[in-house]
Amino acid sequence: MANPILVEVLRGGAVESAHRGAIVVCDADGGIVFAHGDASRPVYPRSAVKAIQALALVESGAADRFGFGDRELALACASHKGEPGHVELAAAMLARAGLDDGALECGAHWPSSHAATLALAASGGTALSLHNNCSGKHSGFLCTCVHEGIDIAGYSRRGHVYQDLLAATLGEVTSTAIGEAECGVDGCSIPTYAVPLGDLAHGFARMATGRGLPPMRALAAQRLLAACMAEPWYVSGTGGFDTALMRAAPGRIFAKTGAEGVYCAALPELGLGIAVKADDGASRAAEVMVAATFATLLVRDEALSAQLSALARPTLTNWNGIEVGSLRPASPLS
Amino acid sequence: MANPILVEVLRGGAVESAHRGAIVVCDADGGIVFAHGDASRPVYPRSAVKAIQALALVESGAADRFGFGDRELALACASHKGEPGHVELAAAMLARAGLDDGALECGAHWPSSHAATLALAASGGTALSLHNNCSGKHSGFLCTCVHEGIDIAGYSRRGHVYQDLLAATLGEVTSTAIGEAECGVDGCSIPTYAVPLGDLAHGFARMATGRGLPPMRALAAQRLLAACMAEPWYVSGTGGFDTALMRAAPGRIFAKTGAEGVYCAALPELGLGIAVKADDGASRAAEVMVAATFATLLVRDEALSAQLSALARPTLTNWNGIEVGSLRPASPLS
Repeated sequence: MANPILVEVLRGGAVESAHRGAIVVCDADGGIVFAHGDASRPVYPRSAVKAIQALALVESGAADRFGFGDRELALACASHKGEPGHVELAAAMLARAGLDDGALECGAHWPSSHAATLALAASGGTALSLHNNCSGKHSGFLCTCVHEGIDIAGYSRRGHVYQDLLAATLGEVTSTAIGEAECGVDGCSIPTYAVPLGDLAHGFARMATGRGLPPMRALAAQRLLAACMAEPWYVSGTGGFDTALMRAAPGRIFAKTGAEGVYCAALPELGLGIAVKADDGASRAAEVMVAATFATLLVRDEALSAQLSALARPTLTNWNGIEVGSLRPASPLS
Repeated sequence: MANPILVEVLRGGAVESAHRGAIVVCDADGGIVFAHGDASRPVYPRSAVKAIQALALVESGAADRFGFGDRELALACASHKGEPGHVELAAAMLARAGLDDGALECGAHWPSSHAATLALAASGGTALSLHNNCSGKHSGFLCTCVHEGIDIAGYSRRGHVYQDLLAATLGEVTSTAIGEAECGVDGCSIPTYAVPLGDLAHGFARMATGRGLPPMRALAAQRLLAACMAEPWYVSGTGGFDTALMRAAPGRIFAKTGAEGVYCAALPELGLGIAVKADDGASRAAEVMVAATFATLLVRDEALSAQLSALARPTLTNWNGIEVGSLRPASPLS
């Protein structure tokens, strides 16, 4: 059965485009608080599970050994925009472990920030692995490998002991049999495993509450989510949606986008995890879906709910700055 | 009823995302040759009808007066990538009418070509109206206004005599009651009118054959489509999908993308027009849909059909150049 239309794109008086998808909100026991669409369909979470992938950095003691604070931990969970502050911090993380960007296996791309790309080109620079939106995550991987004495060669590839460890962790947190899951290769070359959407939501409820996690993992999860909420610019960057969402309610909302219209999020005060997938892979749709979900869950906090509702209704302007349309949650969500 | 899934995005062994939409192929009498999804739903054609919007440039005699050849006419129908060759030609068109880029009302944006943006930034340049993907179309509008003695102030706005003329032309070519159509504002600030998808396909069958058009309009349409097919780089640019499609079969295929997942196209040798809309607005889906449709229509030309099928199955590579997935037409199209 087709998932419902959850987001509409308006221009003039008409719906120009529409996005179908699924949303699941779970508690830490795996109880579904609400859902639209198919909660059981496996999706590649891509970058939306970077916080789960960063657990080992904290659990291993590597983060403490290298003196990482909130900013470094946030960057390890980030899809950052390649702005100078992101790039410098990723380089500094690598330096703490005695490495440089030559160790990164994520590949190079120009900054996701258009402004940062223009500035880099204007200064005669070029795209480096450090600009890759995943360079903080990869720096965290490398620091953990160094700390644990794991050979870093091929650390990003399926079959490397470090990727095996990350896969096992994802399976444990989301209660998924990862060995049986579909596996693809992500943009930054690490494996990505397809996990049912509801299990992702369940996993993030556990990350937010610690319930159902071993004590050390619960502490690590809490520390990582707190770091992202304390330093949301390092999770995305200037103009980034994760950053805007987390700034709307400092210390209360965790949100992390993945490619192809996935979002994972958590609301620690209610003990809830959220997972979203736009069927067509559109980030703009996933953003509206997750903001509208937070607005619903936080409806009792009227001012905050209104702010989140506004984030779920972005205006579209054209090249002359004229308002030409908007996005909005469709009826199941509005 | 939901439109069918027409395009799938694969990663690893799984479908990561999927796009629904509609396709209509019509002959010049409006007979539907084949269709998937809802052919009657009105869609904003956006830039996909630039060739219809350029009819006045030819019909008025402005193109002849200013000595425009295939390249200028192709650029008047283009959503170009803002590469130097596009920008210089748009400026030259304006100069023929005694104007410069100060007359353009399309708004400025950085080139759609990433390489052109990097080169422009590296040389200390900035985004101008001439880089706007619509600057060729707007230059054509301005040249026609000058030729016709129409005041150019506000030429892009709804209610200006020139936009009234363009709206009437769109209504005539597509047999649509434009006065009753939903109207939105496009990215370049001109009005865009919602036209049923089947009527867009019918209109492009007329453009390709001349059937059902007044004689002078039929000649103008033929000249514009021939210009685009002769100079496809000017319709899009380096790496552009319109350019790639038209280069696959020189002089035989006409194709023009619009924003939000619309495509209009024509196959003159079979007298057919094609219109496509990806429900979610994704260009990548519309590209697969239109390429797969051409592959089907041209199945008797095995080599060409295979080439078009390959364009309908683009490979996805990651930042290390590793093949990680692909797009493909879904079962109704494959």
